[in-house]
Amino acid sequence: MSIAQPYLLFLGDVTLPLAAKTARGITLWRPDSYVGQLRLTDETVSLGLQDLDLQQALDLGAKTLVIGTANAGGVIPETWRNTLIEAAKMGFEIASGMHTRLGDIPELAELAETEVTRLHDVRHYDAPLAVGNGKPRQGKRILTVGTDCSVGKMFTALALEKAMQSKGVDARFKATGQTGILIDGSGISIDAVVADFISGAVEAISPSFDDHEWDIIEGQGSLFNPSYAGVSLGLLHGAQADALVLCHELNRPHIQHLPHCSLPSISDSIEANLSAARLTNPNAKLAGISLNTSAISEKEAQALCANWQEKHQVPVTDPVRFGIQSIADALSSY
Amino acid sequence: MSIAQPYLLFLGDVTLPLAAKTARGITLWRPDSYVGQLRLTDETVSLGLQDLDLQQALDLGAKTLVIGTANAGGVIPETWRNTLIEAAKMGFEIASGMHTRLGDIPELAELAETEVTRLHDVRHYDAPLAVGNGKPRQGKRILTVGTDCSVGKMFTALALEKAMQSKGVDARFKATGQTGILIDGSGISIDAVVADFISGAVEAISPSFDDHEWDIIEGQGSLFNPSYAGVSLGLLHGAQADALVLCHELNRPHIQHLPHCSLPSISDSIEANLSAARLTNPNAKLAGISLNTSAISEKEAQALCANWQEKHQVPVTDPVRFGIQSIADALSSY
Repeated sequence: MSIAQPYLLFLGDVTLPLAAKTARGITLWRPDSYVGQLRLTDETVSLGLQDLDLQQALDLGAKTLVIGTANAGGVIPETWRNTLIEAAKMGFEIASGMHTRLGDIPELAELAETEVTRLHDVRHYDAPLAVGNGKPRQGKRILTVGTDCSVGKMFTALALEKAMQSKGVDARFKATGQTGILIDGSGISIDAVVADFISGAVEAISPSFDDHEWDIIEGQGSLFNPSYAGVSLGLLHGAQADALVLCHELNRPHIQHLPHCSLPSISDSIEANLSAARLTNPNAKLAGISLNTSAISEKEAQALCANWQEKHQVPVTDPVRFGIQSIADALSSY
Repeated sequence: MSIAQPYLLFLGDVTLPLAAKTARGITLWRPDSYVGQLRLTDETVSLGLQDLDLQQALDLGAKTLVIGTANAGGVIPETWRNTLIEAAKMGFEIASGMHTRLGDIPELAELAETEVTRLHDVRHYDAPLAVGNGKPRQGKRILTVGTDCSVGKMFTALALEKAMQSKGVDARFKATGQTGILIDGSGISIDAVVADFISGAVEAISPSFDDHEWDIIEGQGSLFNPSYAGVSLGLLHGAQADALVLCHELNRPHIQHLPHCSLPSISDSIEANLSAARLTNPNAKLAGISLNTSAISEKEAQALCANWQEKHQVPVTDPVRFGIQSIADALSSY
């Protein structure tokens, strides 16, 4: 899946700032990837970018209209359709992380069929894949893993990419989820592939390479989340990571959406992830711990990071509060 | 997925006995589920059943034509098409574990569309599923797990069902793979669901129950097979098994199809499976070890089973050579 850039960021008519999370991620991590924003109403949330209509964006070189918002049901609202169809007719590619497929809109399906546009439903994956084979391949790899879903695995991977690149290390983010794919313009939504092909899909996302130094693979789910652990294990096996970075949110009361499931301890989580990773890379090591410490004060967070660093013998940081240079530095020795 | 019985077992024109594995499994485990066999040529392999044409089978009450053979590419040969279409026109349901979908044959698609027939592509799964939630549910469950693929997980589950039923225990096989589904007439091909729904699919296959004693869930793959371990972990979490039965083939040189991957030790395999199973059922225990000992003599096998039984403190048997009553007996205490 490869999405042409630059983007025009479509914000529809959403009014909740949180709903524009994907678009905000794009502006944060790929500042050169877009020409501006398209809002359908004056009340629509703004990212503070230049407001453009389709023609203005096209004139500025935009190639893809990216739906930069999320909503509960993942359904594309009626009020967006005309704009999407209009954009497709003008030759924009359309990219969406919604549950509804773009191709379910008959006009868009027809415009794609006749190659007037290309549709990227990044939450879905239909192309053929090979079964994973676990054979060692060239290149060094980092995988972010987590104690649960939504604990900062994508953020940590992107922050690490930025920190390593700022040191002159050629490290490349590899997306495995819809937001990551829209941010980077390529990747495979790993939880959307047929179960037989989980590890094979990761092998395809990060194949053998010798033209750069690191692939940083975005993790998904958690070995301890009973809804999604199969995806996480396939990711571990497919990634063949040399280095794992464990992500965790402090004071989360239980596994997301499952009040009857408790979080694993950090030590158990490290051990389970390393043990699984070593099936395909016996040299896999823990490179650091990335925390979301927003539940405690900055001073408490500093003390906690120092304490855990001592305990687990790897750099421990909150990338939002303290940056992630310490983990990037530790990776220099690999 | 629920396939109407009795079956007419379709053997096409395959001449290798091994190719009729699925049909043979049906005759072995579900002797009341079929009326006879349909062979296209005199050279076609026979199961020793009554040879029937479509009309004769219909007269005997057959409801579904089951493709009881496998071939390398999983493609439905041209030479079978007329018979399949004819059967569908006569009102047979058609069931297939082939890779090619029955619905890819336009005549069959149309006959299904107009409800003249129903098509069961058991290697595929398209119906909606819910994400697994890991909530405890009623009923006792056994899951067969393995050190690798094709080590007897389906065979062990079916043998255990038979042994338990022969003791008057109401135990029911739950299929998770194409052959098992054709044998039992229902189930979900767990490696064919979208990765997000692996554990959810198992929760759907074996929901809460209080009308019988045990569900015996067919396992898939192995936590130690880097191609498919994600499926195996989702199965472990979805099954919430009270009892695991570990299946293993003696003297297998390496993980199937992957010469660079070695088999796990029995102890490591027990530990990894119990540890994973306990995420959703803290009381999960090992109930026995089921071996394929065909690589050694019967006398050696007896000694080995006794030795391992001592070592692992559970019944160890080769169900083909020695039956599986010992494991069925051990389950009485649950």
